[in-house]
Amino acid sequence: MLTRSLAGGPDAGDFRVVDEALPEPADGECRVRHLYLSLDPYQRSAMAGRHRLGRGPLVAGDMPAAETLGQVLRSRHRGYREGDYVRHFGGWQEYALSTGERTERVDPALAPLSAWLGVLGMPGLTAWASAVELAAVQAGQTVLVSAALGPVGSLVGQLAIQRGATAVGIAGSDEKCAIVTGEFGFRACVNYRQEGFLERLRAALPDGADVYHDNVGGQLLADAFSVLKVNGTVILCGLMERYNDPAKSKSLDLALPIMKRAVMKGLVVSDFEHRRPVFEAAGAHFARLMRGENVGKALVVLGPEAAT
Amino acid sequence: MLTRSLAGGPDAGDFRVVDEALPEPADGECRVRHLYLSLDPYQRSAMAGRHRLGRGPLVAGDMPAAETLGQVLRSRHRGYREGDYVRHFGGWQEYALSTGERTERVDPALAPLSAWLGVLGMPGLTAWASAVELAAVQAGQTVLVSAALGPVGSLVGQLAIQRGATAVGIAGSDEKCAIVTGEFGFRACVNYRQEGFLERLRAALPDGADVYHDNVGGQLLADAFSVLKVNGTVILCGLMERYNDPAKSKSLDLALPIMKRAVMKGLVVSDFEHRRPVFEAAGAHFARLMRGENVGKALVVLGPEAAT
Repeated sequence: MLTRSLAGGPDAGDFRVVDEALPEPADGECRVRHLYLSLDPYQRSAMAGRHRLGRGPLVAGDMPAAETLGQVLRSRHRGYREGDYVRHFGGWQEYALSTGERTERVDPALAPLSAWLGVLGMPGLTAWASAVELAAVQAGQTVLVSAALGPVGSLVGQLAIQRGATAVGIAGSDEKCAIVTGEFGFRACVNYRQEGFLERLRAALPDGADVYHDNVGGQLLADAFSVLKVNGTVILCGLMERYNDPAKSKSLDLALPIMKRAVMKGLVVSDFEHRRPVFEAAGAHFARLMRGENVGKALVVLGPEAAT
Repeated sequence: MLTRSLAGGPDAGDFRVVDEALPEPADGECRVRHLYLSLDPYQRSAMAGRHRLGRGPLVAGDMPAAETLGQVLRSRHRGYREGDYVRHFGGWQEYALSTGERTERVDPALAPLSAWLGVLGMPGLTAWASAVELAAVQAGQTVLVSAALGPVGSLVGQLAIQRGATAVGIAGSDEKCAIVTGEFGFRACVNYRQEGFLERLRAALPDGADVYHDNVGGQLLADAFSVLKVNGTVILCGLMERYNDPAKSKSLDLALPIMKRAVMKGLVVSDFEHRRPVFEAAGAHFARLMRGENVGKALVVLGPEAAT
């Protein structure tokens, strides 16, 4: 739980582990033991009350929201049996009750359990919505991706490569960039924290980018516009630059998209929930091809059973 | 000509009329007497060197650029005969030479001469590119238009209405709004200078807008996002708010397009030059249906022959 309301970036002292009695499932509920807990940038804005998934600003004593992967221990819900693996919004805790709302059974034979919170979870669906549904990346195109080591960015690039495009990444250290090119197959990756970033970005994209997947906003988006081709596409998918500090966000100079005749599209992953079956149908194949459930995605391992 | 370099909004003292000898056309040139001269917002940024049509910042003694409609008085160009009416970039002067570059003959039987700088000119092409090509306005949609009395905005709304959509305008006075609804057929028009603008805008769009045509940027764009439907389209077509003062521009908070899953498209009219034949083929019909060559478009009448 939170020990106080948050201001600025959270630190360890803002959180405390609390022991509570195990809740008994009522009729129509089941109790889930969490094995994996997903950490995602939206959780910061949810804590501040700036996100749809939150319940207004959290105060001391509240439990942060999170998507979790767990196993049903006791069930009084006829849709779930003991032993089933499910994914739901269980929050930052080891056990939770589910009424079945936003709860899906997952098949551990199809993909590793952790993948259901990564490649086959919200980050995978987000990346798929960006590269396949909104940008409709084509063979021969060049796709620039911010936060390229992250769970969404790494998958956007890999989906683009799978579709015959070339991926170029942006990340925050040379070590991250080495993984992005070495493990994920991006053609290049540029460290935005190193001097001369814009020149190196231009050198990595001599012909410009057809698509830019933006997770960051701010100055990085302005820089990306300078390498975007005329008539290029920008997917607006996140504003990392301001999750911790809303004042820090630099907004977009509109002359940039006008000059580039850009098409910009805002992406909210929940719009694509109804496409999850289509997305997950290609899932096993997708999960086999994609790398980085562990590198890209921040998961908290909660139980020994999780080591599957 | 300019009497000095411009800083801030230009005023009358910045300009002076200069008499010069009539230039003689060389081989391959013709001399055009201008009848109409078009005044457009881009000319301000061109004077400051911030526009493609300009030649860098203008200094004292320079002549501002402008599109003009005139009659060929003497021709040594085999494409044009004396008496032909032509549209070209002749600048702020009564006579100019043309080599035929960016010069088109116009048919005064098809539409009034002044219409070739308005409904059938750059403003018309811009409005058509916005409503037809980029936004692809459909019957039953609602289209919100800023600067709705202006040459582009008034035509965007009328094209939308022609396609079976409903147009709602934004303008800077009640008098302007009365023309926008009374003459141009917009369903409503909201005066942004009057108190309670946002509430009145919301009242005028109880179901929201499918499309917003933006000529302004800044706070008006942010306000428009608050009435844009989810998955709505925004055409970014101009930044009037900063033609006179680049520092004044408020840029766009990216949370707005993300929240609305908006599709934003930058429009530069010169991209649609190759579509002019398609656009003008529907021209006579278009010109007859559209109102506001005189209300919407700022033209300088230069000759008595212009009164056709």
